[in-house]
Amino acid sequence: MRKKVTIVGAGNVGATAAHWIAAKELADVVLLDVAEGTPQGKGLDLLEAMPIEKRDCNIIGTNDYADTANSDIVVITAGIPRKPGMSRDDLLNTNYKIMSDVVSKVTAQSPNSIIIVVSNPLDAMAQAAFHQAKFPRERVIGMAGVLDSARFRTFIAQELNVSVENVTAFVLGGHGDTMVPLSRYSTVAGIPITELIAPERLAELVQRTRDGGAEIVKYLKTGSAFYAPSAAAVEMVEAILKDKKKILPCAAYLQGEYGISGLFVGVPCKLGAKGLEQIIEIKLSADEQAALQRSADAVKELCTVIGVA
Amino acid sequence: MRKKVTIVGAGNVGATAAHWIAAKELADVVLLDVAEGTPQGKGLDLLEAMPIEKRDCNIIGTNDYADTANSDIVVITAGIPRKPGMSRDDLLNTNYKIMSDVVSKVTAQSPNSIIIVVSNPLDAMAQAAFHQAKFPRERVIGMAGVLDSARFRTFIAQELNVSVENVTAFVLGGHGDTMVPLSRYSTVAGIPITELIAPERLAELVQRTRDGGAEIVKYLKTGSAFYAPSAAAVEMVEAILKDKKKILPCAAYLQGEYGISGLFVGVPCKLGAKGLEQIIEIKLSADEQAALQRSADAVKELCTVIGVA
Amino acid sequence: MRKKVTIVGAGNVGATAAHWIAAKELADVVLLDVAEGTPQGKGLDLLEAMPIEKRDCNIIGTNDYADTANSDIVVITAGIPRKPGMSRDDLLNTNYKIMSDVVSKVTAQSPNSIIIVVSNPLDAMAQAAFHQAKFPRERVIGMAGVLDSARFRTFIAQELNVSVENVTAFVLGGHGDTMVPLSRYSTVAGIPITELIAPERLAELVQRTRDGGAEIVKYLKTGSAFYAPSAAAVEMVEAILKDKKKILPCAAYLQGEYGISGLFVGVPCKLGAKGLEQIIEIKLSADEQAALQRSADAVKELCTVIGVA
Amino acid sequence: MRKKVTIVGAGNVGATAAHWIAAKELADVVLLDVAEGTPQGKGLDLLEAMPIEKRDCNIIGTNDYADTANSDIVVITAGIPRKPGMSRDDLLNTNYKIMSDVVSKVTAQSPNSIIIVVSNPLDAMAQAAFHQAKFPRERVIGMAGVLDSARFRTFIAQELNVSVENVTAFVLGGHGDTMVPLSRYSTVAGIPITELIAPERLAELVQRTRDGGAEIVKYLKTGSAFYAPSAAAVEMVEAILKDKKKILPCAAYLQGEYGISGLFVGVPCKLGAKGLEQIIEIKLSADEQAALQRSADAVKELCTVIGVA
Repeated sequence: MRKKVTIVGAGNVGATAAHWIAAKELADVVLLDVAEGTPQGKGLDLLEAMPIEKRDCNIIGTNDYADTANSDIVVITAGIPRKPGMSRDDLLNTNYKIMSDVVSKVTAQSPNSIIIVVSNPLDAMAQAAFHQAKFPRERVIGMAGVLDSARFRTFIAQELNVSVENVTAFVLGGHGDTMVPLSRYSTVAGIPITELIAPERLAELVQRTRDGGAEIVKYLKTGSAFYAPSAAAVEMVEAILKDKKKILPCAAYLQGEYGISGLFVGVPCKLGAKGLEQIIEIKLSADEQAALQRSADAVKELCTVIGVA
Repeated sequence: MRKKVTIVGAGNVGATAAHWIAAKELADVVLLDVAEGTPQGKGLDLLEAMPIEKRDCNIIGTNDYADTANSDIVVITAGIPRKPGMSRDDLLNTNYKIMSDVVSKVTAQSPNSIIIVVSNPLDAMAQAAFHQAKFPRERVIGMAGVLDSARFRTFIAQELNVSVENVTAFVLGGHGDTMVPLSRYSTVAGIPITELIAPERLAELVQRTRDGGAEIVKYLKTGSAFYAPSAAAVEMVEAILKDKKKILPCAAYLQGEYGISGLFVGVPCKLGAKGLEQIIEIKLSADEQAALQRSADAVKELCTVIGVA
Repeated sequence: MRKKVTIVGAGNVGATAAHWIAAKELADVVLLDVAEGTPQGKGLDLLEAMPIEKRDCNIIGTNDYADTANSDIVVITAGIPRKPGMSRDDLLNTNYKIMSDVVSKVTAQSPNSIIIVVSNPLDAMAQAAFHQAKFPRERVIGMAGVLDSARFRTFIAQELNVSVENVTAFVLGGHGDTMVPLSRYSTVAGIPITELIAPERLAELVQRTRDGGAEIVKYLKTGSAFYAPSAAAVEMVEAILKDKKKILPCAAYLQGEYGISGLFVGVPCKLGAKGLEQIIEIKLSADEQAALQRSADAVKELCTVIGVA
Repeated sequence: MRKKVTIVGAGNVGATAAHWIAAKELADVVLLDVAEGTPQGKGLDLLEAMPIEKRDCNIIGTNDYADTANSDIVVITAGIPRKPGMSRDDLLNTNYKIMSDVVSKVTAQSPNSIIIVVSNPLDAMAQAAFHQAKFPRERVIGMAGVLDSARFRTFIAQELNVSVENVTAFVLGGHGDTMVPLSRYSTVAGIPITELIAPERLAELVQRTRDGGAEIVKYLKTGSAFYAPSAAAVEMVEAILKDKKKILPCAAYLQGEYGISGLFVGVPCKLGAKGLEQIIEIKLSADEQAALQRSADAVKELCTVIGVA
């Protein structure tokens, strides 16, 4: 049997995730959205590219959760962006309701699936999904660090004019402002970037990474990033489907690791067939630990608003 | 030196073409659009996916044709969709002006490039590009048949529950209504589909193919197909960049082939490093020849409106 | 869980099959041979290429069938080549004993596996494997037609200077001398090659295809072909692992199809997750049917020698 | 025009390099050997796999250097293994003569090519090739570090049960005994392996890496490694053909870098369209510098024997 991946939300992030999956022939894809016609249209269009690509993926678009039954992985991208006049808490509560609704329907159809949360605010939404799903923590994982790290790697590769394949980047903590980059564990061909890039310049690249989402929004004006976010989610999907035992920075539900409990926080996670197979703990400096704690505190604050702390 | 492909138009078709090219690491990409911010934002977002994909493609978004200098291939997707109250001829004239403007700027920067036209109405726009570019016909080619044939193949593969890799489809003529499918040359594992699918059912699949673009529009309501169209254009790009000598159904400027002269019409074309390297002529039945002539007449009518017949 | 493919025989064909599988990250591979050291050395060497290729395949070499337990697919390449002074029947009996021994051990470890036979003489060895395995015919398939058809496609592509992607070739019957090529179902971009290549020249290409194995042996002197044979076997592996429903020319145990019963003969087979999912029957001309019957008779003769007719 | 890569030596390393190149559709390949028939047979066999793989690579086998004209890259794998009763210096002199002869013929046909030396003893043979070719040092590069590092990465990935994609390894110096691994710059997901593997165990993995070639020979008895060595060479080929600016550990002709002049020594090299585009210098500890010097001394000794020091 081919593997089956459901993507909830047929906006740019969700549909482009379907694109990456189909282009790699990783699994059959069910693209689901509440909007009538959108998933069907994008799904059919993508399906019609398959003969050109010589890929046998069945891709269907649907509004009906019954079509998602027995998915191996469910990627959730659903949620609304902030609208004018909407408070942060209003937005949070709205997206919490969407997430709860999606997760209850998804888990009813695919009780053994692994859920990857992509919706923002990421860590809080992952926590909401985890609460609703009542899955073991192995099967609810949030996507943020892969994206942040990909942006950091892009900027480092450009700075040094080297292949992106040479660059690794290590990030902890939340998405965006509360991201904690560990430059000493970020390398070019194994060489720590702290030996290759001057501290002031490195600080600029870190800040650009933190602002990575906003930089794209500034350009697009009415939209936000979707290529790199969807590629990041699909790297997680691939690691799981192929049981790669791949360590990636993901949001995971901590139970004492890094001195934090009961919260989703970005940490290095080994992904394999069972989902989150291991959390890699490294020794942090006092500064790094403090930054990670601030990141966790920010997640907790959001989770408190929606009652999942 | 890496190859360089410029894509004019950063809408869904253009940006997704950039996606396919980058995902295959075929070339560096310049994504150009008149809209400020759109190509920059999509280009940067796609670039930030490259470390995840382990692809070294430089992708830039720009509003400035100077950045397109010395492109090997230019894919033109620019043009506006029909708006309420706009006559067909108004639309045609508007898109003709856009095409002429784009081509004059593109050819000034990349006089040795090969132009692939994706804008609609396809054959007339290809003819307009050819007139403006004053390139030999080898270097101006229109994308339509690959898309039509991909849709036909999708429907055949679904009908028979076989791999898309098993299905070939042969189409001639214009895009959409005037498409001329040759079922006798469309095969599954080499077997003509006329032996595998009953005539009435086959007629339905042909009609669905003709209406393929409209089917997607019906679903999307405010948008049109982009995954399969961009994949089709990129198959042409790849055939040229890799000098594959690949026969694909494309719109080419005929000079007597199939009894037609001075018009872009969809025919089997061999694509290689020089662009259009050969037009494959096959013997048509009287019915097929008549259908192809009707297709050519329809192109001529549009070309007359914009003065490029 | 990753898929698991066992390859019996660590000679050039078997080891190169492992190479193709690993390069595509299709499955974990167990390479088994009676020769001590050979599978271990080749397996470890190939494993050490995986970091360069960024592929997570576990590859092990072994002499112990216990390591093959629960394989999804078993590819059997074992057998000895003809030695000076050995009669055809001696060779046949020797390879029959090897095949029987391999199959009994393989099926004991992997009772639900699908067996792909590559050893020569192909059809007789497939029949031997089928007898020994007592599997349903869906799960014992012979590789021959994919290889013959690949050679035919190579020669056609060279003759016409077109992409190999444009060429399909349809072959029936046995491997080598008794191969039955159907030129009318062999196409370039959908066009029957009979319209593109003159009959005398086509006859030469057919003859070169029949002699394809011997042509390589003539060059290599002390060895025989392995790149194309292993690629052919792996195309079958991939079609099954990815449930592609791909029609490929394979040796299948016929039960009345094409008027033949109780014998392995090369026919178009749809391969999917269950193995042989369908035999495609087409209408043959009287000449074609006679040629296929001759091919079947030749198989039967060999099977009679080894008592599996 | 497609790129053209010549491979000198159609033994296992050379032919498998052709395999990796063709499987990636990187370039046309000319496989050259003095043995009549071998390159022709292997080349044709590999070519016949291309329709299955959907790759348009022209692959030819030849004994005639004229066929190699205008190659972009030439990979030299030629040389003989040590035979019983042969002194080290006899072997060295024999392979020096082979290398000189090959290089003089190769450079006559392809004066602008980039030469990648794979023959052993690696560093001395690279030096011999450089002397004979009289190319700038940018265009003569030796393959050793990529292979050593791939083996080290394999053992680390196995030890920690993580994806090979997570592991980087940094090696300096010569191939085998004089390899200088820098564990502090070898990482798993950015984390130095010194934090993840105990020193004694790490020392074992380093030793196993040094003995990596011998381990394979011990298994194969009459042959030596070819999968990983050829993959390593092709990673260098790809980095150059795609102008990836990829930093890889290669043997380069030093002119003062790392305090060494006039010798080929393994150092981190940035490979791009021009070949060796940059040597990356890092600060070594006194111990590391001493080990690198010992490695250079060993190279110098060999070079002195053949008169190219």
